[in-house]
This record gives sequence, structure tokens and C-alpha cells, in this order.
Amino acid sequence: MFSEQVELRGHIIDSLLLPKVLDEILTGGGSFTIREIKVGKQRSDPSYACIDVFGPSPEVVDDLVRRLRQHGAEVVEQKAVQLVEAPADGVFPPEFYVTTNQQTYVHHGGKWIEARPVGMDCAIAVDVEKLQASTVKFSQVRTGMKIAVGHHGIRVAPQERSMERRSVFEFMASSVSSEKPKSAVIREVAAEMRLARQSGGRILVVAGPAVVHTGAGEHFEKLIEKGYVNLLFAGNALAVHDVEHALYGTSLGVYLERGSLADEGHENHMRAINTIRAAGGISKAVAAGVLRQGIMYQCVKHNVEFVLAGSIRDDGPLPDVITDVVAAQKAMRAKVEGVTIALMMCTMLHSIAVGNLLPAHVKTICVDINPSVVTKLSDRGTFQAIGLVTDIEPFLRELTEFLGQAES
Amino acid sequence: MFSEQVELRGHIIDSLLLPKVLDEILTGGGSFTIREIKVGKQRSDPSYACIDVFGPSPEVVDDLVRRLRQHGAEVVEQKAVQLVEAPADGVFPPEFYVTTNQQTYVHHGGKWIEARPVGMDCAIAVDVEKLQASTVKFSQVRTGMKIAVGHHGIRVAPQERSMERRSVFEFMASSVSSEKPKSAVIREVAAEMRLARQSGGRILVVAGPAVVHTGAGEHFEKLIEKGYVNLLFAGNALAVHDVEHALYGTSLGVYLERGSLADEGHENHMRAINTIRAAGGISKAVAAGVLRQGIMYQCVKHNVEFVLAGSIRDDGPLPDVITDVVAAQKAMRAKVEGVTIALMMCTMLHSIAVGNLLPAHVKTICVDINPSVVTKLSDRGTFQAIGLVTDIEPFLRELTEFLGQAES
Amino acid sequence: MFSEQVELRGHIIDSLLLPKVLDEILTGGGSFTIREIKVGKQRSDPSYACIDVFGPSPEVVDDLVRRLRQHGAEVVEQKAVQLVEAPADGVFPPEFYVTTNQQTYVHHGGKWIEARPVGMDCAIAVDVEKLQASTVKFSQVRTGMKIAVGHHGIRVAPQERSMERRSVFEFMASSVSSEKPKSAVIREVAAEMRLARQSGGRILVVAGPAVVHTGAGEHFEKLIEKGYVNLLFAGNALAVHDVEHALYGTSLGVYLERGSLADEGHENHMRAINTIRAAGGISKAVAAGVLRQGIMYQCVKHNVEFVLAGSIRDDGPLPDVITDVVAAQKAMRAKVEGVTIALMMCTMLHSIAVGNLLPAHVKTICVDINPSVVTKLSDRGTFQAIGLVTDIEPFLRELTEFLGQAES
Amino acid sequence: MFSEQVELRGHIIDSLLLPKVLDEILTGGGSFTIREIKVGKQRSDPSYACIDVFGPSPEVVDDLVRRLRQHGAEVVEQKAVQLVEAPADGVFPPEFYVTTNQQTYVHHGGKWIEARPVGMDCAIAVDVEKLQASTVKFSQVRTGMKIAVGHHGIRVAPQERSMERRSVFEFMASSVSSEKPKSAVIREVAAEMRLARQSGGRILVVAGPAVVHTGAGEHFEKLIEKGYVNLLFAGNALAVHDVEHALYGTSLGVYLERGSLADEGHENHMRAINTIRAAGGISKAVAAGVLRQGIMYQCVKHNVEFVLAGSIRDDGPLPDVITDVVAAQKAMRAKVEGVTIALMMCTMLHSIAVGNLLPAHVKTICVDINPSVVTKLSDRGTFQAIGLVTDIEPFLRELTEFLGQAES
Repeated sequence: MFSEQVELRGHIIDSLLLPKVLDEILTGGGSFTIREIKVGKQRSDPSYACIDVFGPSPEVVDDLVRRLRQHGAEVVEQKAVQLVEAPADGVFPPEFYVTTNQQTYVHHGGKWIEARPVGMDCAIAVDVEKLQASTVKFSQVRTGMKIAVGHHGIRVAPQERSMERRSVFEFMASSVSSEKPKSAVIREVAAEMRLARQSGGRILVVAGPAVVHTGAGEHFEKLIEKGYVNLLFAGNALAVHDVEHALYGTSLGVYLERGSLADEGHENHMRAINTIRAAGGISKAVAAGVLRQGIMYQCVKHNVEFVLAGSIRDDGPLPDVITDVVAAQKAMRAKVEGVTIALMMCTMLHSIAVGNLLPAHVKTICVDINPSVVTKLSDRGTFQAIGLVTDIEPFLRELTEFLGQAES
Repeated sequence: MFSEQVELRGHIIDSLLLPKVLDEILTGGGSFTIREIKVGKQRSDPSYACIDVFGPSPEVVDDLVRRLRQHGAEVVEQKAVQLVEAPADGVFPPEFYVTTNQQTYVHHGGKWIEARPVGMDCAIAVDVEKLQASTVKFSQVRTGMKIAVGHHGIRVAPQERSMERRSVFEFMASSVSSEKPKSAVIREVAAEMRLARQSGGRILVVAGPAVVHTGAGEHFEKLIEKGYVNLLFAGNALAVHDVEHALYGTSLGVYLERGSLADEGHENHMRAINTIRAAGGISKAVAAGVLRQGIMYQCVKHNVEFVLAGSIRDDGPLPDVITDVVAAQKAMRAKVEGVTIALMMCTMLHSIAVGNLLPAHVKTICVDINPSVVTKLSDRGTFQAIGLVTDIEPFLRELTEFLGQAES
Repeated sequence: MFSEQVELRGHIIDSLLLPKVLDEILTGGGSFTIREIKVGKQRSDPSYACIDVFGPSPEVVDDLVRRLRQHGAEVVEQKAVQLVEAPADGVFPPEFYVTTNQQTYVHHGGKWIEARPVGMDCAIAVDVEKLQASTVKFSQVRTGMKIAVGHHGIRVAPQERSMERRSVFEFMASSVSSEKPKSAVIREVAAEMRLARQSGGRILVVAGPAVVHTGAGEHFEKLIEKGYVNLLFAGNALAVHDVEHALYGTSLGVYLERGSLADEGHENHMRAINTIRAAGGISKAVAAGVLRQGIMYQCVKHNVEFVLAGSIRDDGPLPDVITDVVAAQKAMRAKVEGVTIALMMCTMLHSIAVGNLLPAHVKTICVDINPSVVTKLSDRGTFQAIGLVTDIEPFLRELTEFLGQAES
Repeated sequence: MFSEQVELRGHIIDSLLLPKVLDEILTGGGSFTIREIKVGKQRSDPSYACIDVFGPSPEVVDDLVRRLRQHGAEVVEQKAVQLVEAPADGVFPPEFYVTTNQQTYVHHGGKWIEARPVGMDCAIAVDVEKLQASTVKFSQVRTGMKIAVGHHGIRVAPQERSMERRSVFEFMASSVSSEKPKSAVIREVAAEMRLARQSGGRILVVAGPAVVHTGAGEHFEKLIEKGYVNLLFAGNALAVHDVEHALYGTSLGVYLERGSLADEGHENHMRAINTIRAAGGISKAVAAGVLRQGIMYQCVKHNVEFVLAGSIRDDGPLPDVITDVVAAQKAMRAKVEGVTIALMMCTMLHSIAVGNLLPAHVKTICVDINPSVVTKLSDRGTFQAIGLVTDIEPFLRELTEFLGQAES
């Protein structure tokens, strides 16, 4: 849906101007929302109306707006987007337009061009010959690229809400507090995941090491085995502790089965790292028969792509980890295309980082026992995320059970 | 086990004093712990040893100590407890001895008398004729009662740790963080509860309304049905929301099955209160067939005693609630006799209040998704409590499953 | 401001009905908000408008609505409130109307009668002879009282927002997270408190014991001395730890000056209680020269009324504590009349309890280092509360400094 | 201090063996701690003692132990450290010894060699020709390096506690809860910082962006100006928000002075990044007069070294950020030499990362409003860290005031 705002001023109600304008919109194949009506306090006072005109394409909206002008509707002048050359590699012009995570169009050469891919906190570079627009990160801009500046000639298409089926991602305001029932929400998340798998959507899981520490790894493995994970974004720690568990039965030195400390168990994660380094990486360790179970093993076995991004807390790291954070962002950004559901579990760092890369239409659910993780994710711009404040192990157990029930 | 500390000074090592003393203790049927040995830095410097002498009864310890004195062991003079009359009803003498939650003895009339019941933050009143000692709260003291003051003639018997079987309450340092596996601990808690039920122990549950809000009520009901709850301490809110759920299917206006808000659902808890008030109380509502399910219903049906204590947040309250807090404390204190396990769920107020009433030997587990509840419980003196930071609904579900498995 | 909703249906735009109605409202001394306009998709489709009609008194609104009816405006039939007799003492009729914390009117005998005092989770009792309406709690209802049931004939006047001066209580959405600057907000709170003091408003402080534990007591004392506290609601613990500090320099056994533990300091709070019990209460202890400093001392000295409400966690309690929670609620409810600002510090229990008693127009600020306290206060219906997630000692220090600066 | 454990078995008390051994130690210039004494329950039962023998140098300990052997003391055989060649670049031998953050010695060639620098989670590489030992990270190991394996011939010298002056870092058990008074602790921290500045110690500050968001930046600037910061470790976000504040007066789009949102303020941090990128980095921006205030400005002006380490959440990043996390770890590790105090503020990621790099003797204080940050830091091995749960702005204000007072 595309839209334009028009304003009407004067005796628009007495003079029948308002009804005529609304009629025109409907007749022309559009629809409208009256944003504001101010009626003069005295008979002689002028009135004011502000109307959003919607149409199925930018052309329809343009056409409607042209006709409304004849009724005196004032439209914000349809300016072309203003373009300024990037002054240096990695540097935008000072007044560059900063993107959101919504679909965005620029008006250039008399056309509305969509900037691709959708992405937050980027600039928009316009190829004036090919009439193409791309969102670009600082690291991607090169001297002389034509970058959108200011706010004219730029349109944002807000996220449309599906009307057919109200999913959990729509009826939930924001987050489910720790004091609310969660089974109903988990059942809905399972339904969304099944729907995605059936309809060719892609499911991204973002996971922190607490998934392993809490003993939830076995449920996560089942999710992978059943085909509910298409993509995994994590850090070194998740992989290290998963390998530690696969090799020694411990996580941070604690036996997951018994909940008790292993002797010198704190060294196990260092030995796990060393083992994978010696094998040359996770896939090679699987191929060599060194790594025979666990989350990373299942990813390799079921061809689930993964990106392991480095952080300064990392021990090791594993050879698979992308230690340059800009390269890691680029690798993740390249893979989110086509993702329809993002399930974020127990990691503030990765949740916010990945949240920044996702278009607003991706159904995002963030599960953490700490309510502030959920809050921060929204504060940092990922408004579409719904949060579930709960313990990860029972969450994944129940999710896996719901997915299993539906199949049998 | 009873104990006394003795000190040895001088050339206790060269002179063979220390070995003789230790030998004497063993011969006399006691045991010891060497608390401290300071050996002089120079040959001529005197040494020092501080030894805890243990015996199976106060008499054995007294006897041992008498013999050690002959070896030069200095014992803190065995003074009788000092007693001062309470100056007024509800007022202790200024220097009154403040009790802990450990077994405590006073030395009076040449005997060690145990103060009963064990209780924190009380004074000790001694009946010099009957040779009985009782712990008394402010509200229980009457003018002229003889109250222990100072610290002489008072012995605390520290909590003995069972040697046969290391239970979860012993091997766990303090609390299980949200990032650790919990299944092993829950299995242990289940084992303790089964053991208690078999051996005639009493299980106290202390519960807050989040047990209902989160949908954990049905698991709690099963615990009651299976006989794992002997006593319930809660507030008005738990009972109100349980009745709300029983009558309307909602808790705080949210349908627990669907997780969605009921129309005007926020009024349901007021109507639930009104219904029970109209019936004359919970038991009468059950008898009249008005209340036919839920936690409170199961308590009535299975003769589980409950104390509902009032708070200033209460709506209503229900007729069953003891609105005077001193009376409520008294009612709870009267019932904790014989409790061997206390399971505290989702209530800081009640957990701390009940923690204050429990002897240290009661195995106490506190489950809350908020880590600070667990911390505060220990800070306020209930050191024996172990904490589990997790979501209550899956906790109770798993606990009930483990208890069910064991039976079949 | 009073309001009524009217609906218009038909060809209201083409037929000039809408402009006529709006004109009528303005002419009649009212104002309006167009809540909804649905214009038919086809020319022949009927349209629909829903309009809130406002007037300075219920009579003006009634008059306007009468005239609008002549234009075909459909008004929800002006029914009288339905009254049913209370079936028993302490019991409402089943369908009783549950009040909010907003001003509420019932339509009876052809008049709109305001129910007083404003209060949440009450019923409305109507004295049909005196034409008076009162909000009543469960404990106040007597057999035969006429109680409003259903939803007809009941109007809620939503909280008006002052237009002259946007105070912090209006521009702040809900809560200030721990990661935001707080000085600006604290300065605004100081400005509101000065304004209240100058214009005869009453300032209520609700405080938990952490005010004392953190060393913030001295700042609180200054607030009292300077006349910024008219009323104090607290529990036994605040008073006990304040007295402990006044008598021994410790709070929970910790020396506030040095931050270190006193020997046997944990007993100090029990001795503090005993001292006040021996004196016969706080005022008597001040009169006798036993209590010579601290928060409670300042309250007595500056005639600040206080209500100390009991809880089951209480040690003692002090003689001043109202141990019956229903009586304590009643005492607090009796005193909140005229309160314009409520400052809630470090107590979830008292904040929620007092929040339930306050009309929505009371400017309410809740200060706690734990974000969940603020969240819960709003969740339990005190929507007007703004929260400040910060440490109480520096908050009170800064607040006192701002108030001091303004005076000099 | 160096130590060795010896064991005595038999009738060590009756036979005077124990006193002889202790005497020998004192005579030989050593000291001891009796770790354990088990005395046989029956006269004929053998006893057991385990004694730590301390000496001022490894040689003294060796000498003592040699003499004790003549008394029958069993010493764990003095084995040389076992060395195995690294099988590949970046890979340790399987059984490599994992270091702690304490001083560590290896026994090789009949000598005790200290491994330098002190560092957690490293291996120890021994240069058998130069008789030098180094702690090495995975990234530093090369094929053929001789790496310590197993646990023989390795000694850890536990952190000695200064006896002259008990600092806050010693008397504080672990963390100061939000409910405790903090001024006393802050005064102690100030005293330590002054002492460090006077005695040539180095002060490291690790800071997260909340320092800027909360308005604490100005206090931090004063710390730098007064010479209390020698080294700053932070991330891109701290620098970006500091620059945003310096250029626009906002942080995350919020005006710090007024606490209100700037129009399009969320874009300010992107423009701040762009400005610094255009200038070529922070120092160049200062030199060019573009950046004229703030934390980073003060660092440049006062020659405070800083390391900005990248994370996957970063926008930009600034040209000064080390985007490769392994390189960033290396850069930080190279600079911590000589650090005596580490002040960690508002950043879990950087606090844990830096904690992993610090020797245990560095006095470490972690300030955060979230108690879990402090807990996690200790859980991850930085046991020496003390925590202060409070708001950062008032903390830094008070710290700066105390430091200022001391100077005037």
C-alpha cells in the first residue's frame, strides 16, 4: 500500500469540499484515513482536514493526488529525492537520509524506486543510470556514489498487517511478562513455524550459550532434525559450550545430566576449543568423527547454514568464527534475505545485532529470562519483536513437543 | 550434637599437652575439631590451640570439659543463664538474648534446657519452676516473665548435616542461577518430597498468585491430589485468583487457556471475591457446590490445612483471610511444628515471613524467576534456603512429572 | 469536562448532516472529537460517524445531545443507573459495577451524581433520598444498601490534562529507564513539589526500609524539615530501621557511616523495637527524649501525619503499627483526600497498595532501583504513575539539593 | 610467598612428630598452615596431618621440604613440568595446562620459572634454552613450541593480601547490594585511586555507553582531567554516543540537559559516526577542531591511551575501532601491564572480556545498576572483582567530589 498526505483548508464542511474529496478518492480506486479534522470554533472560522490517501501502487496515488488538487487539496510538492556524492570511501554526505527497517522508496526520474535490501541505519545509494536504489552500510560506500540526503522524495511503506489470520505476532502488544501464562503463546509460535516450513519461509535462530548451560541443547537439536531451523546465528561461546558438552558432558564445567561440577571441569571448554582447532574446524571435526553429537553436529549433518560471529569475550576462538565484526555483520546481512521468522534465545548482544539487520516484516520473537533483554531490543529499534520472559530449557522443550504433536 | 569450646595455651605441642587433650576427648566418647592452632614463631614462644569438643548430649560435653580442665584447658566459665523480668506486657528487658533459627539451650539450675519451639528473632522465657524454656515473640511476653539476657549460659546446637545421604539441600551452595541446568535439582527435590511423604515428614507450600497467573495451578492441584502438600501458606491474592480461574477461566482477566484478555476481565477477580464472601468462605463455597475446582477446592477436598494471611494490597479480602498480621503470624507459627520441607514459590513477602518462622533444619527451597527474591531470603536470615531461578509453570510441571514417574 | 457519544448514520456527508451537527455542538457551547468516520466505499453506501460531545457540565452535554437527536443523531439511551440491594453485610449484588480510579458519575433521579471519594475496585452505593453516591469497599457495604449494577447510567470523566503547563507527569510516557539521564526529571519533580507546597497541595510520601539502609534517611529528614512532606505511609520496617539508626547508628546491623557490620548488629533492630515498645510508641519516645533524631522523630516534631501498616514480615511490631490490614487500608484511604502528589520510594507492597487508593489525578512518581516495581505498579492499574529506575540515596540527595537551591 | 604441601601419617601426635615438623619449619625460616588434622578415633588408629609449608622463595621451600622428609613427611615428588610440542600453529597439545589469573611457576631444569604475563585461560610455553616461560593464547602458539601439560611441576602463588592497610578490596566480601549504603565504599575507592596516582600505579577504566546516556560523561571527563585515568577500554558505542553528545547535545537522540527527545534525534548517532569517519578518526577530529569536548576529546587532550574494541552491534564503526576481536584482545592485553586498579562501568561484555585479561592482583571494581553483571563477572573467573549495584551518574558524581575534596 502506498500513500500520500493531502491537506484541505477553508469552509470544507459547509462547502461540501470534504465529502467531494472523499468521494473522489473512492471513485478513483483509492481509500483514505482522516488523520485530523479541526472544525472552526465559530461559524466563520475556517476548518482543516488532513487525509492519508492510499492506493495499490505509487501511480494510483499520484493520479488521485493530481485530481484532488483540482478540488483545492494542497499536496506536499512531489519532489525528486536529492542526491549528493559521497565525499570519500566509507563516508556519507553530511545530510544523508538514515533508513529504518521498513520498505523505502525514493522518487527519481519520475519514478518510485524501492531501496533494496530493507535495512536499518543505512544510507540509500541511487544508481541514476540503472534506476536502482540500494541501502548501503558505511563500509560499502565509495567516493562518488550518489547518496540520498534530506527527506524529500522519500516514502516509507509501513508494514501491512495481514487481515486473514491474526498471528501471535500481531495480537501481542509487546512482551509476555514472567507472570503470564506462556503455553498459549508457545503453541502459536509452533503454529507459525509449521506454517513457515510448509510455505517455504526461512526460520532463523539466534542463540546464546545459556541454551547449552541450561540443558536445552537436546531440544534445539530436535528442532534442527525436524527441519525447523534454516539458519543459525551465534557466537563462539554457543559453539564452544555445545562442543564441550558433546565431548565431555559438561557445560562451563557442570555435568548437565547431574547438575554437579566435574573435576577441573572449567578446563573442558579450553580443551574443546583445542580439539576443534586441531581438527581444522567444526565441519572437519564432524567429518573426522571427532564431533558426533550436539547442536553444531546437527547443523553440519542437516546442512543448516550458520554464522559464528566473534566477540572480545571469546576464548579461542574456533576456526569457524568470523573474528572481524564488520565482516561478520556482512556475512549475516547476506544470509537474512528470505528469512520470515527469527527466534532469538538468551543473547542480548546477538539479538540486538541481528535485530538491526532484519526488515520489520520478519516475525521476531525474543526469549530470555531477563526482562531487560526484551526491553532493550525494542528500545534499539526492533519494534516488531515480541518478547517472552521465561526459562529457555522448558520453553524449547514445550515448543518441540507442540511441533512433534502436530506432526503425528 | 552439643559442643563447647576450650582453649589451650603454652608449650602445648612440645609438652605433649595437645595430644593428651585430644586423646582424652576420644576416650571420653567425644569428638573434636581443631579450630585454630597458632604455633610460636620462635622455639620459646608459647603456642595456642582452640578446640571444639563435641558430645552426643550436653552432659557428655560437660563431663569432657571437666576432665580437660585438669590438663590446663581453659574453658569459658560455665555460667547460668542470666534472667531478668519483663518490665511490661509486650516488652522485653533491654539486654534480652535474640534467638536464631537454630536449636538453643539455656543453662539453668545446673541443667541445659532446650528453648521450644525453635524460632528466629524471639526472646527466651524461662519457667524456673517447671524448668522449661520457650521462645517468645513480643506479643507473647507478659510482665514478670523471666527472660534470658546477655550471652552467658546459652548454647546453640548448629544444624547437623546428615552423613548417610547427601541431599540437594546439602550439596547446593546457595542458589541455582538461571543459566544452569535445573532438571537434576528438580529431580532431587522430588526425591526429597517422596522421602518426606514416606517417612511422615510434613511438606509446607508457600505460594504467591503468579502460580495461578502463569497457568501452573493445575500442576499444583496434582501435587495436592497426590498427597505431596500437607500445609499451604498464602495470601488473599493466591486464593482470589485461583477462585477467579475456577469460576471464569481467567486470572487477572487473562484467559489462561488462550492467553488472551477477557472482556471486562479485570472485574472478574472482584466478582470472584464477592461470590466467596456471599457463600461465607471457601469451605462453604465448596460445600455449596459453588467452587468446584482449583487449588483451594483441592485443599478443602483433601483436608490440606491452609493459612491465608492478609496484606494491605488485598482486595476484599476473602472471609478466610486473617487480616491481623500478628494473628496471622501466630497461626502460621502454630502450624509449622513438624514441617520438614518448605517449598516457596513466587512470593517475596510470604517467603521471607515464613522463612522467619522456620527452624534451620527445615529443608527450604525457594523458586522464583526473579533472582533477588532468593538473595533477599538469605539476607534476611534464612540461610538454609536454596534458590532456583526459573519459571514456575514448567518447574511445577516437571516436579509433578518426576513425582508421577516414581509412583508408576 | 463531561462527554457523551453520539452516532450518525446514513448519507451524512453528502446531506450536510455532519457539518450541521458539528455546528450545533459549537453553537451550543460544547466541543467535539470525531472518533471515527467511515465513508461508504460506493456513492450509494451509507456513511457513519461517531462523535464525542463535550461540555463543561453534565447539563450542557444533556442539552446538546437533546438537540442533536433532532438531527437524527442516535444517542445511547440515557438510562438511569440500575440499583440492586446488597444481599448481606460485606457482600455486593452479583453484577455490581467495579470502579476505576477516575471520577465517576451515576445517573439517578434525572441527575448525574458524582460518586465520592474517587477510588479503584469499589462498588458505588447510592443514597436515593439524599441523592448522594459513594464508592464503598467490601468492608463498608451493609445489607440493603443500594448498589449500582451493570454499565448503564454510569459515566466516567477521563483525567483532563492541563494545557497551560506540561509537567513531567504529562510528557513522560511511563518510565525512565536506568540508562537515561535523570537529573532533568528530578528537577521537574522538585518544581512540582514546590508548586504543590505553594498552592496548598498535599504531598504524600510512601517509603520502604531501603530508604534507611542506603543512607538516604538524612535527605528524607531534610524534606520533612523543609515542609515538603504532608503525609507518610510506610510499614513497620521503615520505622524500625529508622529508629535502629537513630539509636545505634546501624541499619540491618550495618553502620551507615562506615558501611561496615556492627558486632551483633543484627540484634539492633530487635532492641530498637523493644525500646519503642517500652516507651509506649514513637510519639511518646520522642516526648520522653528517648528518640532524638531520624525520620520518625522529624515526623513527630513537624506534625507530619503517618500511617504505619502491618505486614506478616514484621518483627515486633512497633505500637504505632496498625496490624489489621483492612483497618490500615481504611486509615490510609481516610487520609489521601487532598493529596496532589505521591512520591513512592523503594517498596513494592506499599506502592501498589497505596496506588490502589489514589485517584488518577494524583501525580504519582515511583522511584526504585528494580525496574519491575515500576512495571507492576502500572500493571495493577495505577496507570498515571511514572517510574524512575535509580538508586534512592542519590535521588533524594539531588531532589533535596534542587529544592534547597530554589529557596535560596 | 611460595608453598608446598606435605603430609604426615601415623601416630604423629603421640610420637611428637607433628610438633617436631612444625618446629623445623619455623627454625628453617618458613611458616605453615595446618590444612587438616585427622586424629584417629581410637588410641591405636593412625592420625594424619596435611601442612602447607611457606617460604619467601622457591629455594627456601625446597630446602625445608628436604628436611621435613627426614622426619617422614611425604612430599609430592618434585617433578619437572612435562612439556609437549604444539602440534600445529594455533593448536596446543591435548593435555595442556590451563592457566588461572594468578602468578604461576613451572619447574624446569631444576628451577622454578615464572610464566609471564599473568593471564587466565592461556597455555604456558617454555623456552628451554633461555629458561623462560610465557603464557600464550591460542593465536600465539606456533608448531613445535614446548607447552606445559598435566599438573606436575607447576605451582600457583596465591594472591597475597596486604597486611598494612585493609582496603575496600579486601574487607568487602563480594558485592554491595542495591540496599546497602554506598558512600563509604565510594570514599574508599577514591582513596585507592589517589594512592594509585601517587605511587605510580595505573588506573584502567572500562566503560559502556550508559555512562553517556545517563549524563555521567561530564564527571568522567573530570576524572580524566584530574589525571585519574591512565587507560580507557571501551567499545564503538561509548565513543559514538560521546561524540553524538559533543556535537548535538543528545545521546540516543535524547537531550541530556533536558531529558527530552530531539526531532530526528535517533539519526544523530549516525551523523556523529559519519563526521568522525570524514575527519579520519577521533584524534584527527580533535586536531581539526571538529570535536571540542567530551570523553574522547579529553582522552586525546590528556594523552590517555584508549582501545576501542568492535562488536557485531556496532554502527559505523568509528575508524579508531579495532574490528577484529582477536586483534582487539591482543591490543588490550599488551596495555594491561602495570595496571593496578580497574574500574568497570556499565558494560557486561567489556567487563567480562577485560576481567579475563587481568591478573588477580589488580584491584577490580564493577559498577552497574543491574546486579547480574556483577554476578556474572565473578562466575566467569574474575573472583577478585567487587561489585557496586548503583546508578552510574550519581556514583561518578560522588567519586569525583571525593577526589576533589581530597585535593583542596
